[in-house]
Amino acid sequence: MTSYQKLKDAIEKKGSLLCVGLDSDASKIPDSFGYAPESILKFNKRIIELSSEYASAYKINFAFYEKYGWRGFKMIEETLNMIPEDIFTIADAKRGDIGNTGNQYASSVYDYFGFDSVTVAPYMGEDSVKPFLEFDSKFTFLLGLTSNVGSQDFQNLESNGKKLYENVFEISSKWGDAQNLGYVTGATKPEQLSKLREDYPDRVFLIPGVGSQGGSAEDVMKANGGKISLVNVSRSIIFAGSDEQIVEECKKYKVSLNFDSK
Amino acid sequence: MTSYQKLKDAIEKKGSLLCVGLDSDASKIPDSFGYAPESILKFNKRIIELSSEYASAYKINFAFYEKYGWRGFKMIEETLNMIPEDIFTIADAKRGDIGNTGNQYASSVYDYFGFDSVTVAPYMGEDSVKPFLEFDSKFTFLLGLTSNVGSQDFQNLESNGKKLYENVFEISSKWGDAQNLGYVTGATKPEQLSKLREDYPDRVFLIPGVGSQGGSAEDVMKANGGKISLVNVSRSIIFAGSDEQIVEECKKYKVSLNFDSK
Repeated sequence: MTSYQKLKDAIEKKGSLLCVGLDSDASKIPDSFGYAPESILKFNKRIIELSSEYASAYKINFAFYEKYGWRGFKMIEETLNMIPEDIFTIADAKRGDIGNTGNQYASSVYDYFGFDSVTVAPYMGEDSVKPFLEFDSKFTFLLGLTSNVGSQDFQNLESNGKKLYENVFEISSKWGDAQNLGYVTGATKPEQLSKLREDYPDRVFLIPGVGSQGGSAEDVMKANGGKISLVNVSRSIIFAGSDEQIVEECKKYKVSLNFDSK
Repeated sequence: MTSYQKLKDAIEKKGSLLCVGLDSDASKIPDSFGYAPESILKFNKRIIELSSEYASAYKINFAFYEKYGWRGFKMIEETLNMIPEDIFTIADAKRGDIGNTGNQYASSVYDYFGFDSVTVAPYMGEDSVKPFLEFDSKFTFLLGLTSNVGSQDFQNLESNGKKLYENVFEISSKWGDAQNLGYVTGATKPEQLSKLREDYPDRVFLIPGVGSQGGSAEDVMKANGGKISLVNVSRSIIFAGSDEQIVEECKKYKVSLNFDSK
């Protein structure tokens, strides 16, 4: 089964676009989980147990693991093993390099770890994205319009009447199809999101920025217009507090990110 | 001592801009080094023994290690331990993410691994680069103009009469100074390199693309005009063949990348 099919199945089964982000910052993990970095794995186990009923996908933010070197990399592997097989997985690694080097990065996330998808940075162009797309049963999310303040520094620069992020969508959309290439599109810019949704209705969008980053689930759902997307929520869920509070947040987001396939 | 000072000292001591790239592709390592991934570490040990007399810097390309998961990450650590202390080290990881996430990536390469510098992708803007610059005794190489064919897809897009890569140089150069922020500038475009050198004479350039990628050391040296740069050579040295051939290539590049501080 392709990653794309797995994603569609997961979203239909759960009836929600909810992606839970495992940005498991050791400094925010409660003391009851013990010391870092071991606490991260115990924490992830608990979060996955509490949230897997509600999540269509999990996104693992590599930075929080790489901070601990090889032990962190091992924890990524062990965390993946805890995730139920029917839930879509995203390596949020923002990799990107040319040809043979790109190939090794793709082999790392797909062959070694076995992720369903990965986030990739566009700056180096086609030959830095193609190595990921060559794993054609897998799925690549290219950075399109990001949710941060700094996105305006370069992504808004205009050429030929189009902003850089619009050029990234237009040019790169020819490199892959809706089944293997989607886009990271920030929740903090609902107007642009809405326009991109009109222009690229079939592409899967990975939408970060809801919750602690300031984007609202309601605005995103309106802008998304019922299309296949994943809306990532990290801190608001995983650091919500007690087990009950975590489940409560999952339920709340599952409903507000409702997906109806009919 | 700052990374910048260490770099200057290394270049003066060796009298050369030679950076040896440890793109240790297991599929190209001779059988005599045994099986992958263990062969990589043995191979690196031999390459470092043969080349450390000539190299001012080593660049570790993370992709070739990440392919082997946590064992690969451990090999990065072990390779770093083999590099003589007075040689500058570059984590060629092309990382980049916002705020707190960027911070964890920076902590990984600087606090955990102890690299002197890292390569960073610019697409997400200032708040994705700042976390690296906040380690102000370290050194960040931002992707400016890359050496690959795909660089033309976005890096050449014009806004306000400037190409994207020129905007990246101009805008980002305000985020850090010559002591903590330099640029990756490909050897395959000597004309643009020459112009960037005129506009940014004090910035350290990390120049990949010489050797197997097609750039010539002579063209690069002419374009560089005697400034502080590192010229990376990977495959042409590390896969040159016998020990004698590897040393021969090192000597050849050390001379053609000659640096005279007077």
